[in-house]
Amino acid sequence: MALWISLARPMVVLAMLAGTSSGSAIAEEKAPMVRLAKLVIDASHLEAYRAYLAEEVKASMELEPGVRTLYAVSENHRPTNFTILEIYADRGAYEKHIKSPHFLKYKAGTEGMVKSLELVDAVPLVPDMKIK
Amino acid sequence: MALWISLARPMVVLAMLAGTSSGSAIAEEKAPMVRLAKLVIDASHLEAYRAYLAEEVKASMELEPGVRTLYAVSENHRPTNFTILEIYADRGAYEKHIKSPHFLKYKAGTEGMVKSLELVDAVPLVPDMKIK
Repeated sequence: MALWISLARPMVVLAMLAGTSSGSAIAEEKAPMVRLAKLVIDASHLEAYRAYLAEEVKASMELEPGVRTLYAVSENHRPTNFTILEIYADRGAYEKHIKSPHFLKYKAGTEGMVKSLELVDAVPLVPDMKIK
Repeated sequence: MALWISLARPMVVLAMLAGTSSGSAIAEEKAPMVRLAKLVIDASHLEAYRAYLAEEVKASMELEPGVRTLYAVSENHRPTNFTILEIYADRGAYEKHIKSPHFLKYKAGTEGMVKSLELVDAVPLVPDMKIK
């Protein structure tokens, strides 16, 4: 059993041997992190919100290798309702992202515009799926 | 004004001149089509459904240039709940997609597995956003 684990998950086993952390914690940290963010925006601030979010996702994609996408859409029939498909290389990339100047600017600037925010952790069906 | 339109939207103006359709209809047909599909799957068929959907999205991406992505995720805490970010080059690409053999196989094969399906037309905030 130990042999099977060491063959199938060599990085985790190495981390366990090094005694730095638990194997499962390391595995979780190194796995891609995928999330759906669902937001409802105050209609009176919609255009300002769109500008803040567009600036933030563009900067994140350009400046952060660990941000794989921040694909934001608004619904046709409810333009105040946004869904963002967020993909980070791993949890560390996400932690770095939420400390970045562009994210902090977005967060502070849109604070009074966001009526609700739901964060839904998710698993991709086909992890290497791209956008052509 | 006519000059501005002809410079900015030459394809639409040409179509109007040719008398094939209204300008707005052509513009709509040629715009990318973006949608969120939200599905709830019968738990007793979850693994079979995942296999059908994975086969379908992979075939679509490989065989259809007009399918820009079909990025499917399931929720961590509700594994029966799926969201698919669907991006097609235009409405024609979508119409072609739903007639493809791989889509028809998926649709027929999963018919009894899907408890609910909601299709939400959407607008991308940053249309040229990709996945790294």
